Amino acid sequence: MKSKIASEEEVMRRAALETFPTEAYSAHVLTDCFEDAKRLFLESLIEVHYAHAIMLAEQQIISSEEEIALLRALGDLDLDAIRGTAYDGSFEDLFFYIEELLKKACGDDIAGRLHTARSRNDIDVTIYRMRLRVDALQVAQSAISLRGVLLDIAERHHETIIPAYTHTQPAQPTTLAHFALAMVEVLGRDIERLRRATDAINYSPLGSCAITTTGFPINRDRTAELLGFDGCTVNSYAGIGAVDYFTELLAAVAVLMVNVGKFVQEFLLMAMREFGAINLSDGYVQSSSIMPQKRNPVALEHVRILASKAFAQATGVMSAIHNTPFGDINDVEDDLQPMIAQALRDAVRSLSLFSASLDTATFNLDILRRRAAEGFITVTELADTIVRREGLPFKLAHKIVSRSVRFALDASSEITYDIFRAAAREITGDVLSITRAEFDAALDPEHFVQVRTILGGPAPAETRRAAAVEREKECLDKEWYERCSKALGDYKLRLRATANIAVSAQGLSVG
Amino acid sequence: MKSKIASEEEVMRRAALETFPTEAYSAHVLTDCFEDAKRLFLESLIEVHYAHAIMLAEQQIISSEEEIALLRALGDLDLDAIRGTAYDGSFEDLFFYIEELLKKACGDDIAGRLHTARSRNDIDVTIYRMRLRVDALQVAQSAISLRGVLLDIAERHHETIIPAYTHTQPAQPTTLAHFALAMVEVLGRDIERLRRATDAINYSPLGSCAITTTGFPINRDRTAELLGFDGCTVNSYAGIGAVDYFTELLAAVAVLMVNVGKFVQEFLLMAMREFGAINLSDGYVQSSSIMPQKRNPVALEHVRILASKAFAQATGVMSAIHNTPFGDINDVEDDLQPMIAQALRDAVRSLSLFSASLDTATFNLDILRRRAAEGFITVTELADTIVRREGLPFKLAHKIVSRSVRFALDASSEITYDIFRAAAREITGDVLSITRAEFDAALDPEHFVQVRTILGGPAPAETRRAAAVEREKECLDKEWYERCSKALGDYKLRLRATANIAVSAQGLSVG
Amino acid sequence: MKSKIASEEEVMRRAALETFPTEAYSAHVLTDCFEDAKRLFLESLIEVHYAHAIMLAEQQIISSEEEIALLRALGDLDLDAIRGTAYDGSFEDLFFYIEELLKKACGDDIAGRLHTARSRNDIDVTIYRMRLRVDALQVAQSAISLRGVLLDIAERHHETIIPAYTHTQPAQPTTLAHFALAMVEVLGRDIERLRRATDAINYSPLGSCAITTTGFPINRDRTAELLGFDGCTVNSYAGIGAVDYFTELLAAVAVLMVNVGKFVQEFLLMAMREFGAINLSDGYVQSSSIMPQKRNPVALEHVRILASKAFAQATGVMSAIHNTPFGDINDVEDDLQPMIAQALRDAVRSLSLFSASLDTATFNLDILRRRAAEGFITVTELADTIVRREGLPFKLAHKIVSRSVRFALDASSEITYDIFRAAAREITGDVLSITRAEFDAALDPEHFVQVRTILGGPAPAETRRAAAVEREKECLDKEWYERCSKALGDYKLRLRATANIAVSAQGLSVG
Amino acid sequence: MKSKIASEEEVMRRAALETFPTEAYSAHVLTDCFEDAKRLFLESLIEVHYAHAIMLAEQQIISSEEEIALLRALGDLDLDAIRGTAYDGSFEDLFFYIEELLKKACGDDIAGRLHTARSRNDIDVTIYRMRLRVDALQVAQSAISLRGVLLDIAERHHETIIPAYTHTQPAQPTTLAHFALAMVEVLGRDIERLRRATDAINYSPLGSCAITTTGFPINRDRTAELLGFDGCTVNSYAGIGAVDYFTELLAAVAVLMVNVGKFVQEFLLMAMREFGAINLSDGYVQSSSIMPQKRNPVALEHVRILASKAFAQATGVMSAIHNTPFGDINDVEDDLQPMIAQALRDAVRSLSLFSASLDTATFNLDILRRRAAEGFITVTELADTIVRREGLPFKLAHKIVSRSVRFALDASSEITYDIFRAAAREITGDVLSITRAEFDAALDPEHFVQVRTILGGPAPAETRRAAAVEREKECLDKEWYERCSKALGDYKLRLRATANIAVSAQGLSVG
Repeated sequence: MKSKIASEEEVMRRAALETFPTEAYSAHVLTDCFEDAKRLFLESLIEVHYAHAIMLAEQQIISSEEEIALLRALGDLDLDAIRGTAYDGSFEDLFFYIEELLKKACGDDIAGRLHTARSRNDIDVTIYRMRLRVDALQVAQSAISLRGVLLDIAERHHETIIPAYTHTQPAQPTTLAHFALAMVEVLGRDIERLRRATDAINYSPLGSCAITTTGFPINRDRTAELLGFDGCTVNSYAGIGAVDYFTELLAAVAVLMVNVGKFVQEFLLMAMREFGAINLSDGYVQSSSIMPQKRNPVALEHVRILASKAFAQATGVMSAIHNTPFGDINDVEDDLQPMIAQALRDAVRSLSLFSASLDTATFNLDILRRRAAEGFITVTELADTIVRREGLPFKLAHKIVSRSVRFALDASSEITYDIFRAAAREITGDVLSITRAEFDAALDPEHFVQVRTILGGPAPAETRRAAAVEREKECLDKEWYERCSKALGDYKLRLRATANIAVSAQGLSVG
Repeated sequence: MKSKIASEEEVMRRAALETFPTEAYSAHVLTDCFEDAKRLFLESLIEVHYAHAIMLAEQQIISSEEEIALLRALGDLDLDAIRGTAYDGSFEDLFFYIEELLKKACGDDIAGRLHTARSRNDIDVTIYRMRLRVDALQVAQSAISLRGVLLDIAERHHETIIPAYTHTQPAQPTTLAHFALAMVEVLGRDIERLRRATDAINYSPLGSCAITTTGFPINRDRTAELLGFDGCTVNSYAGIGAVDYFTELLAAVAVLMVNVGKFVQEFLLMAMREFGAINLSDGYVQSSSIMPQKRNPVALEHVRILASKAFAQATGVMSAIHNTPFGDINDVEDDLQPMIAQALRDAVRSLSLFSASLDTATFNLDILRRRAAEGFITVTELADTIVRREGLPFKLAHKIVSRSVRFALDASSEITYDIFRAAAREITGDVLSITRAEFDAALDPEHFVQVRTILGGPAPAETRRAAAVEREKECLDKEWYERCSKALGDYKLRLRATANIAVSAQGLSVG
Repeated sequence: MKSKIASEEEVMRRAALETFPTEAYSAHVLTDCFEDAKRLFLESLIEVHYAHAIMLAEQQIISSEEEIALLRALGDLDLDAIRGTAYDGSFEDLFFYIEELLKKACGDDIAGRLHTARSRNDIDVTIYRMRLRVDALQVAQSAISLRGVLLDIAERHHETIIPAYTHTQPAQPTTLAHFALAMVEVLGRDIERLRRATDAINYSPLGSCAITTTGFPINRDRTAELLGFDGCTVNSYAGIGAVDYFTELLAAVAVLMVNVGKFVQEFLLMAMREFGAINLSDGYVQSSSIMPQKRNPVALEHVRILASKAFAQATGVMSAIHNTPFGDINDVEDDLQPMIAQALRDAVRSLSLFSASLDTATFNLDILRRRAAEGFITVTELADTIVRREGLPFKLAHKIVSRSVRFALDASSEITYDIFRAAAREITGDVLSITRAEFDAALDPEHFVQVRTILGGPAPAETRRAAAVEREKECLDKEWYERCSKALGDYKLRLRATANIAVSAQGLSVG
Repeated sequence: MKSKIASEEEVMRRAALETFPTEAYSAHVLTDCFEDAKRLFLESLIEVHYAHAIMLAEQQIISSEEEIALLRALGDLDLDAIRGTAYDGSFEDLFFYIEELLKKACGDDIAGRLHTARSRNDIDVTIYRMRLRVDALQVAQSAISLRGVLLDIAERHHETIIPAYTHTQPAQPTTLAHFALAMVEVLGRDIERLRRATDAINYSPLGSCAITTTGFPINRDRTAELLGFDGCTVNSYAGIGAVDYFTELLAAVAVLMVNVGKFVQEFLLMAMREFGAINLSDGYVQSSSIMPQKRNPVALEHVRILASKAFAQATGVMSAIHNTPFGDINDVEDDLQPMIAQALRDAVRSLSLFSASLDTATFNLDILRRRAAEGFITVTELADTIVRREGLPFKLAHKIVSRSVRFALDASSEITYDIFRAAAREITGDVLSITRAEFDAALDPEHFVQVRTILGGPAPAETRRAAAVEREKECLDKEWYERCSKALGDYKLRLRATANIAVSAQGLSVG
């Protein structure tokens, strides 16, 4: 127990002894930030240095000699050594650590010039966006792959009859293609949102400086181009303070993960022994040596929880920054960015594992077909047939069928032609003209599906048409992905080449 | 204490006495659902009935006489009486209640025909979308208005100097226009997302029926057109099971509310007595009769909590449906839809109150100008000036300024020309050629702002340019809003007119 | 398009015309708040007025005549008329509306005295707590009931064999009692948390006044007692600013709803046709006239979504107030309280519907027993038996069983004694001494369950013991509930009686 | 573009080639799980092995020789080598990897015996709880420390006058002690919840086995004791399936983090230049070399975002598992546990950094005192004084004060005695008897505070009383912490000693 409370003067004395950073600040903030920064942002930070140096020289804000000295110092940085460095409190963070290395390499004065007309603030948002565009693209690519696998399933199964459930009960026959295409269609919209969010990230805030740009005649477009951005953000206050460059993406991921969670629930159900509708390959199933028939579909459980985690983190990031000021604040920076990265990583893990496990999954066609034929789930079509064939009012047709089901249940049988005729006679007092063949067709799940040819229906002709449309979309999305992916590789080469040209005026090369 | 546990047989006996709905089911589910349905979906439901009847007749699935009987029965419904009806357990829900009314009006048989080639499932999603598109449009419109008010502020204040804060400390001068345009720019992207989400809702799932469409030759495009939709959804399983028609909107609202929360924090701060930067009109301020100078900016607190509620509910809806099956389930239906509506309503309330209170807010220009000039927050520009004017290395310029600040702090003064020269002499051992006028300009906040002319900077010419661009976007967004809004009015007239034409063949009119 | 931006002077002119409350403030804030206040807090507010008046007189801060005038004015208030009043902007809120009524009844001066030594701030938190304690108690009571129903199921089914699943596959036999008791045990802890949270609410902040108490010699304990509180909160700043009086409860509800969500998933699965393990009574099942055998267990779906909504709202409230200041702010007041009430109401609805639907649910004992015997899920017991009976190493026993399963699978059979002996011979080269009876017992699900007698196991003796313990806890929880419930009724009578005694000095009575 | 869709047979062929685990399963699941398990659970897993072996021997389920062989094999494990092992897909996870090592050390047969009467399922939940109790204790300890620092502040500042704000405006004088004690009181309840949650974790589920316990005569109490648990969980299904052992803790952390977020908002405001009320030591402030007076209170921003992250992750975990089945599922296991650990770690970081930065923070007493005296915030006390001193009705007193404030505002002055008398005369037409000294006292903030002596008020005598009560609670909480902390060290020694005794029968020792 404390015996005595310190006076305010004693506290001041203690305070006067503390220098930045204290042990507590290092332990609870800076160490984590340094490790995270090395892991997530190191390369981007170096690239920003390159691009800024080149632009400053082009704009004659620094001299050619200064540029060359800076580029050579950058080229000489040993990234592996930096990655291997542990945080020791002698510098604030990765930025200052690298600044120290540059000072050692080319002197304080020249190293200092690199910081002309910029600020930690715009550098930070720039490297966050550089990381994010890569992660965003990977999420989009994983979603495109999952849609591809589901589209493959659809195309293999235009004729595969399965029961569709409503309120968890088998309700009507449909096809596996129709079911898979439902997910394909939804994922198509997810991919659209991911594309837009990914494109929206790729604007350079560099030049926003602390928050009000600079009086130096910098060329924002040039650094944007050198760093592979599609253009510049505009307002510099927003360049620093806006958060929608990541919240739009996270919101799209949250929407996607809710969808993935719904899809995987369906496949997990199909994998239960009582359903027996899907077989994962051994590669995704945990089995027991003593009960070899017990096949735990663990991969799908992991898909579910990874999607759940990604969802929770994506919305959690938004909740975390909610009600913070609009401007330059730590709340959206070094502590938060790793949570964003983790959300995206878990999304990619979930999507990739889902694709991989479905890619070699097979279906128990017999069981599915049988389930789609039993339990009277085709009787609505029988009623429709009576209406159309006999011209009877809907209500009467409905009554006849209902009576037939009742008779069949009492007899522990399916509805037979005889049962049907008996029911019809009882209701109408008359004999219907529907033939046995027509009757059989009306109750046949294949027939049920075949007649549903309208837009969005399960008839194979319609699902083939829909699948073709989706394939085209897939094609366009893949092109987009390839284009973005290439651009993110190309700028790196271009940046290095530009630096080399500058340096090679002196017969040297960079990095 | 229970003395005896019932046997399974006793439970069965008790169970056998229960009929649907039990008191508990009525009390905890159906009563709320009936009230909510009357409030949110009644008109849409009637319109769906009209459109379906017209289409069925056009497709010759029902006869012209049946159509007319149905349309007249619909026209005769007394909506106010329906709204006044309390739930009593004698029917399941609003749908069945209206079916009863129609049966009474035109007989069981004809009323029954209206339910040909459709299902509760597609009707439900259709009316949810019809409600949602209206609410979504209102959110978009409220966001457009808020942006308009902020744009007005920007255009009034291209020359108004204010301090910009970093890490909650005054950091650099900027203008009120620059600050307001940052929010305008962010809101512009929010509005874009809201437009896309609103457009995405407006596709008709009608014809998806239970989940697999129908064998009847219905015309989905026709009902879509009659109900003011832009087209049809495709896959019928997705038509029933997909949730992104509302999750995309809610995600956009969540992103928007995080932004609004950030903006309002800034204005709340400005309204604190210690800041004294903004004055709300008396209309938005709660005052005390005994302390008339205490002006509680309660409207802004309400903006914050309403935005927070909207955010929490928007993400909460996603959390609520997360990990539910993909298909037809109650989880996304009658219990959930009111929560969606409440989230959107709170978003509209927050946005509208924000617009209204800012619209007559004024700023204490003197205080803002003074804050932007004190505390040395312009000294970075002085350092830049030394670099440019004297050709000194950045590091040395920085040192001179740093020493000047130190001298000034010691003298409890701002930096004077003499202080500056003394500092420069101490550092460089030399006299700088910067004149007093140049020195004064370098420390002047207006000058600070004037030289920041690059893309996104606060210089008035640049903020004027940016404001003009935003006005154009505003113009396009308003056109979109007017177009949508008109379309949502027009279809109602068209639908009624179409019904009247059908009926008037018999010299009658509808509703 | 706006042609011209208003000048700051024009805005000031417009602002000067606005008086509190503006139309926007009424429409977006005060109207909702008035309706919510009437619905949730009216009675409590009147009671606070009674209690405060009585205490002020007892402390001689007001005179006996003033007290009587106030009590009579309060007694004369027509609550139904107040409830019927629509918000019209002529007063700020319910508090001021009632103040107006009191002024009319007993004059400005006397009505004004009621507001001595208190503030809107402490009144508000007091009435929020008075509402909350009632809602909290109802949640607790609903949880107690659900546990009771599950305990009934357990007590009916100590011998009912069912399969337990791991990773969604049948894994081992257990009993329905064991399964139900797992939920009972978890709910027991939920109830404990709810009891603590409910008790924690019931402290009176009255006397905290605006935030610093008062210089008047009020008696906080007396108002607390008159209003049915268990005592007073202490620090007055915390009395106004602390939020854990509701966050603790909401956190407990969130934890509970996650549990409920898990439980209901199990019963929904049991209700699927492929499982056929549980039958809800007709009272909770939506059926189809044409497919009478299709029984949608909609009540359970509603339980799930209502729990999900309660969960989302409970955590949403916390998210909404997160990062707001600590003190007196609107964020935790009139806009937020209805969301808290809705979260609790949905929790009660979910729990009550769950209890009611399980209360008459019956189980398909044959199906459950059969599932627990098939699929080799008892073979781990066979291996254990070999170890114990033959003294063989575990590994060898395991191998024998594994081989037996393989033989059986190849023969599309269950494991027979012959298959077992063949497998044993192949592995050990020897004949085991286990008899056919021992073999049969080892594979028998009843035997499997019977031998699991250790703490927490499914053996009927153990589940009977556990059930008895849970009954005792139930008994204590019910006593607590009755005690609290009675206290919340008693104080109302006492308060009215106290008021009447004061007034009846003059031969009159109150309300 | 894919030219051809694989047939179902081709898929089967591909599937047949896949073995567990596939590359995708390793990459997206097992690698992360292995790394996480080594980091979080390695030691606990080994300890579970020790305890189980000892208990099996004591119960004579394995022989003494087998026990010794197992204990020696366990003792010989090289934990550092295990930590250095990278995942390569040749084993499923850490459990199997260690099983392999044990098999190598003591043979398949003996190693296999260790797995008698247990399962991966109960082992997993046991080690999760062992990790969690350590983390929970650290959160509790960090909260106790923060309360201690705030209590120190309170005890230094019983007489320090500060303004209390309502609706973000200065409202009344109070003391720093009163303000700090508000947080102390709230944290006291947080600590109570953390204590309960921590205690609730510490029950051993070991012996639940797969989900139904075992037929072997194990001693659950003994393993519980050896592993430092306070007892056993009961129902084995709940032992595996229940999640409230972590959700209760996370809910308590969420509630705590909301509180911390509120507290830190207050200190961040105090640290703004416009407020200037608090000074953090240099050790927690980021400064600028060019603007030495700009002191960014970054430590407090980190406190806020770390608390926000902890909050978002804590509620996120609950959201993630919401609507998953009740039983043995991956969703609450290896993918989720690291998110729980991260939530707790961020909570500890936030709390510790908050304590550390407040511990050497000092307050600008003059500024605070001045703010508490200006702006008429003491006038309510003047009105109260008139009521008490003159016996005037409250309403009249109020009017006099209101008029005085108006006069003072018009004269740009504070209220003087003359102004007051002029106002009184105008209202009452009479001269009040209040003396200048009484008048001065009534407006004096110290007097304002001194007279507020009732329970929970700011009068120094009352805050001293309250602080003493809080110190006592602190004392009890620290004792609890020490007891728990010691217990978590002691069992480790005891377990090792017990193992050594068993082995040393043969003259050997373990580990």
